[in-house]
Amino acid sequence: MNKPTCVKHGNHIEIPGLATVHSHAFQRAMRGLTQRKSQHAGSFWSWRGVMYRLAERIDPDSMYAIARLAYLELAMSGVTLVGEFHYVHHQPDGTPYDNRTELADAVIRAATDVGIRICLIRTAYMRGGFQQEMTAAQRRFSDPSVDLVLQDVETLQSRYADHPLVSVGLAAHSIRAVPIAANRELAAWADARQLPFHMHVCEQRRELEESIAEHGVTPIQLLADNGILSERFVGVHSTHLNSAEIHHLTHNNCFVNLCRTTERDLGDGLPPTVELINAGAKLCVGVDSHCGENAFEEIRAIELDARSQHEARTVVGNADFLLDAGTRLGYAACGLEAVWEQDRVLLDANDLSLIGLPESHLVDGVIFNATPRAVREVYVNGQQIVENGQHPETAEIKQAYVKAIQQLFDG
Amino acid sequence: MNKPTCVKHGNHIEIPGLATVHSHAFQRAMRGLTQRKSQHAGSFWSWRGVMYRLAERIDPDSMYAIARLAYLELAMSGVTLVGEFHYVHHQPDGTPYDNRTELADAVIRAATDVGIRICLIRTAYMRGGFQQEMTAAQRRFSDPSVDLVLQDVETLQSRYADHPLVSVGLAAHSIRAVPIAANRELAAWADARQLPFHMHVCEQRRELEESIAEHGVTPIQLLADNGILSERFVGVHSTHLNSAEIHHLTHNNCFVNLCRTTERDLGDGLPPTVELINAGAKLCVGVDSHCGENAFEEIRAIELDARSQHEARTVVGNADFLLDAGTRLGYAACGLEAVWEQDRVLLDANDLSLIGLPESHLVDGVIFNATPRAVREVYVNGQQIVENGQHPETAEIKQAYVKAIQQLFDG
Repeated sequence: MNKPTCVKHGNHIEIPGLATVHSHAFQRAMRGLTQRKSQHAGSFWSWRGVMYRLAERIDPDSMYAIARLAYLELAMSGVTLVGEFHYVHHQPDGTPYDNRTELADAVIRAATDVGIRICLIRTAYMRGGFQQEMTAAQRRFSDPSVDLVLQDVETLQSRYADHPLVSVGLAAHSIRAVPIAANRELAAWADARQLPFHMHVCEQRRELEESIAEHGVTPIQLLADNGILSERFVGVHSTHLNSAEIHHLTHNNCFVNLCRTTERDLGDGLPPTVELINAGAKLCVGVDSHCGENAFEEIRAIELDARSQHEARTVVGNADFLLDAGTRLGYAACGLEAVWEQDRVLLDANDLSLIGLPESHLVDGVIFNATPRAVREVYVNGQQIVENGQHPETAEIKQAYVKAIQQLFDG
Repeated sequence: MNKPTCVKHGNHIEIPGLATVHSHAFQRAMRGLTQRKSQHAGSFWSWRGVMYRLAERIDPDSMYAIARLAYLELAMSGVTLVGEFHYVHHQPDGTPYDNRTELADAVIRAATDVGIRICLIRTAYMRGGFQQEMTAAQRRFSDPSVDLVLQDVETLQSRYADHPLVSVGLAAHSIRAVPIAANRELAAWADARQLPFHMHVCEQRRELEESIAEHGVTPIQLLADNGILSERFVGVHSTHLNSAEIHHLTHNNCFVNLCRTTERDLGDGLPPTVELINAGAKLCVGVDSHCGENAFEEIRAIELDARSQHEARTVVGNADFLLDAGTRLGYAACGLEAVWEQDRVLLDANDLSLIGLPESHLVDGVIFNATPRAVREVYVNGQQIVENGQHPETAEIKQAYVKAIQQLFDG
């Protein structure tokens, strides 16, 4: 099996395309709006309130316009595959669209119009929480049955079967939003079809408390007890784990999907990254809320935050280990390990962030220092989508984005 | 007193020039070279070994070439003032240059040729450590007497008295490298002249242990006991503090100079930022080792790392508080509060990192999301140094840098 590397060609450094495994593209529209003490910014849970108000108002056109800008920003940062953890499905009153996958189709079109790969991770959301009513926004997320979730997955699989950039995965939003019996059904269905199965896990301590209140055990223990963990299970965040849970994740050969720029932003805390890696977890990264502007920072933040935590250097691994997490393993977490070598990015070796790197240390400089400005050429599935640092649709995408968010926030 | 703000002008967001208070420009040449387990990268102290080998070989020409590239990168990230904590003074065998301030003059020329302000912080370095011999590299740093240190400060003050971009400050490298009696003398001299007085403090736990071994107390306690703290004292790093030391720093109205991208890189740990701010510390930022490529990340990292530490949001302060730390307070830490309003930076409001920000939330977007690519125009002391995202000397600066480091590492 090949491993990702960085290679110098003239004035370029060639790297494999980056994979961001966990994205909520519509949250790009919240950038800059939730950072003040006075504005419900004090915790994850108040941030979620702002996100819900946005989710209440978005429609297929604004979903497309926002996602297209979010994905353009990813492409311009060297990302060639996005895993879109898609959970806004229905009309504002909870009624499905005539085309049930209207909003999923909008984000898929946003990605393919930009030219990057998308794994649409159709996310089941079945309740407001343990003994909690649905909020207005949650009605848009809500799935009344497992069958309808799976029907949507099959619709998407069939609709995009021939599209080279589109694949489909399945997720349960969280143990908070999906009862455990439904969760078992979903996981078994994904397992039978060898589909990726993603889930938000252990992001906030409150989730642990709620899990214990409902089930008597913490989330990963609950998933292990119910046979839900597998080699295609992708545990998003995995911030607050005990040692038994680390064992369950690694013994089952799961992916751990860190989203450090969002986790930093939301004050999630520091995950047990070193313990996970030492136990053999498959590491991948995600842009999540799109609060971070730099896909290289997503990758290096894993190591840098672990250094802060352990007061030592090179604690997770060398740069080549981190590059693997940011490329091949991200593709694998989306069921696309077979194609990671088809996508590539050329960086300007003379960009201020990289200039002077000896050929022996390209990967170290790329992982620890690259900035999006260095991205010059991006190739996905044999097509060039960024040329000389420019994407041809930039002006139109920006214009449509500004119009969409003005309507959303002023309307 | 005015406070820094962000203002929209057409397609630009105008912000005050950023101040990076703590820089070792020559360390830019180490970028990417110390990140591997096998290469002495495992701790701060092994990283220091690599830095020492570089410091042994550098000469006035390579110092100039490296510093000029480092400062160009700062300017292109919106930085208009650098505090250069300058401690490489002498020839490789420790003999002073004929012009004693040859290397200081080289870094000053690097900054003024790029067009940014520099506060040359002439740094006293008087011993290898408590009961420790000087290493070869340390001979280049070494000052045999306080008088010679102060003579250099006066030489620089006199030489650049009429230069609008140049000012001079004084530093003791650390309590490790400067005996306490000399430290008292230096601080008193700076105090009498109202000069900034900077010092590395409490970056690594080993420093605390060494201070206790030599003096029986931790570093800030030692400085407080010796009357060294003042409103012009700048405590660089201030990572490992007890509550009495936090009180000493804030009661004396000191500056605390966090350098989060370097502190993350070196595994220094997480400082007690919230406690310092709540007690009233004056906060400023620094690029330090130049391992970070984004001056906005230096600023936001203060809040983001405190969020990870406290598992909450907006714990240090809102974006306008952080902007003040990254601009006005940085100028003040270099004795230049009177001029911070003279320098300004225009960002492209339509850069992918910033597009769509409402005018009410410009500062939030700038602090939490800006990337160097967004910097379009930079004005220092009335002169424009960056125009339409370009600095006119870029090609020549890059070429000279590559040549210099090839000679250093291959020679």
